[in-house]
Parts: sequence; structure tokens; C-alpha cells
Amino acid sequence: MNKIEHIGVAVNSVKLVGDIYQKLLNTPVYKTEEVATEGVLTAFLQSGPNKIELLEATNHDSPIAKFLAKKGEGIHHIAFEVTDIVAEIKRLKAEGFVLLNETPKIGADNKLVCFVHPKSASGVLIELCQEII
Amino acid sequence: MNKIEHIGVAVNSVKLVGDIYQKLLNTPVYKTEEVATEGVLTAFLQSGPNKIELLEATNHDSPIAKFLAKKGEGIHHIAFEVTDIVAEIKRLKAEGFVLLNETPKIGADNKLVCFVHPKSASGVLIELCQEII
Repeated sequence: MNKIEHIGVAVNSVKLVGDIYQKLLNTPVYKTEEVATEGVLTAFLQSGPNKIELLEATNHDSPIAKFLAKKGEGIHHIAFEVTDIVAEIKRLKAEGFVLLNETPKIGADNKLVCFVHPKSASGVLIELCQEII
Repeated sequence: MNKIEHIGVAVNSVKLVGDIYQKLLNTPVYKTEEVATEGVLTAFLQSGPNKIELLEATNHDSPIAKFLAKKGEGIHHIAFEVTDIVAEIKRLKAEGFVLLNETPKIGADNKLVCFVHPKSASGVLIELCQEII
């Protein structure tokens, strides 16, 4: 895996928390994007080679809505950039990791994504993502 | 802030979870280090320009022991690399952020560190760190 592509943070409002993170990181929210299939509104901030992705639920059935109801605002996932997501999925399956989707799906920010079950990684939801060229 | 320096993950055993993360990231634990003042044993893995820091409590009063008792294993903090930690502390205080320590202290991995209160950053514990040269 090449680097931490981004950290996903579940928030009640990307507008309000975006303002806080702009001050914290001293850099602007450079993009907002809705991913209707996941029921989320996202906002991105850059920190060198890495990003912070703020995630707000857009409906009550969204995984982010469920996370917020259970745990409140906080870190939701770590996403690692990979060069070949299909090969990484195959490698991780062979190592015994449980994947939430075994076929890459389209996520925010022009990426193919796949999630590893938190039970496979000591309570941490891991995302793999590959840029769509 | 220059980049995400590392993600801190609270775990019950750096040995056991280190083995899992070695498989997950396909890279070895390259260092373990005890920080007696914080009551933690740490283990580090590299992912490109970023690191994963696994944190195991070495006594019951350690902040990591309290985190694990309350929330279980999971992401504990995001650490951003800064060039001038004293200047960043001053800037964040002026922006209204609450700092857990207003004077940098010595952390793991040869760093000066400072923590921002999670209440200032939508439930996320933020660390600033500057390499000690």
C-alpha cells in the first residue's frame, strides 16, 4: 500500500466541521461531493500527500448515520492508496482478511474502493482505494 | 501542517495486532519503543510517507488503558507533522483551540508533541509533532 490516502471523519455537518478543520489545518476545504449511493456528503482538505475526508449522512439509512447514532462524531476509517485494488483484494483474502465488498465499487473522489471488516483489523475500518484513470 | 505523520491505534497487544497489520499493510513492524512517561508500548509500521503507531498500555493509569476500557481497540489519534510546533501551538490557541499541553513534550519516535482537545476538533484527538533534530 502506497500511503494513507485519507482519513474519513464522521461529522454531523460538513459545513460546521469543515470550518473547524480549515482553521485546524490552516488550509481550505477544496472540494465537496455527494455520493448518493452511500448516502453521504463529503468535504476534503489536503495535508501534504494526505487528505481529510469529512463525512455527513444524507439519509437515516446511511452507514455514516448509523455510525454517528452509535458512536458520535469521530474517526470513521483509514484509507490506503493502492496501485492495483484487485490484486490487493486477492492478497488480503488469501491472508484471511474479511472484506465488506470483494468487488471494487465506485467511491468519492474518483476512486475504486473496497473495505476491510473492522473485526479483521482490531476495530479499525480500513479502506483500500485506487484512482480511476 | 506538512502531512499526516502517523495514525495512533489503541490495541490490547502490539505483538498480536502488529502481526495483523504486517499482513494488512504487507510491511514489517520496523520499531517498537516504550514511552514510560505515557505508560505505552508502541510499534511502528510504514506506509509510504506515513506511519501507523500501535499503542499498548503498560499500566492501568495510562491514557491508552482508559481509552481501551471505555471504547475498546480502535483509532486513538491523528498526528500531523509540523515544522515549528511552538508557532503552531500559538496559532491554534489564537484560533480558539483547546490544547492538552501548551508546552511541547517529548513523545515516541524522537518527537516533540502537543495534543489538541477532541472537543475542539469534532471528537478527534489531534497530535502535532515535530522531529527533534
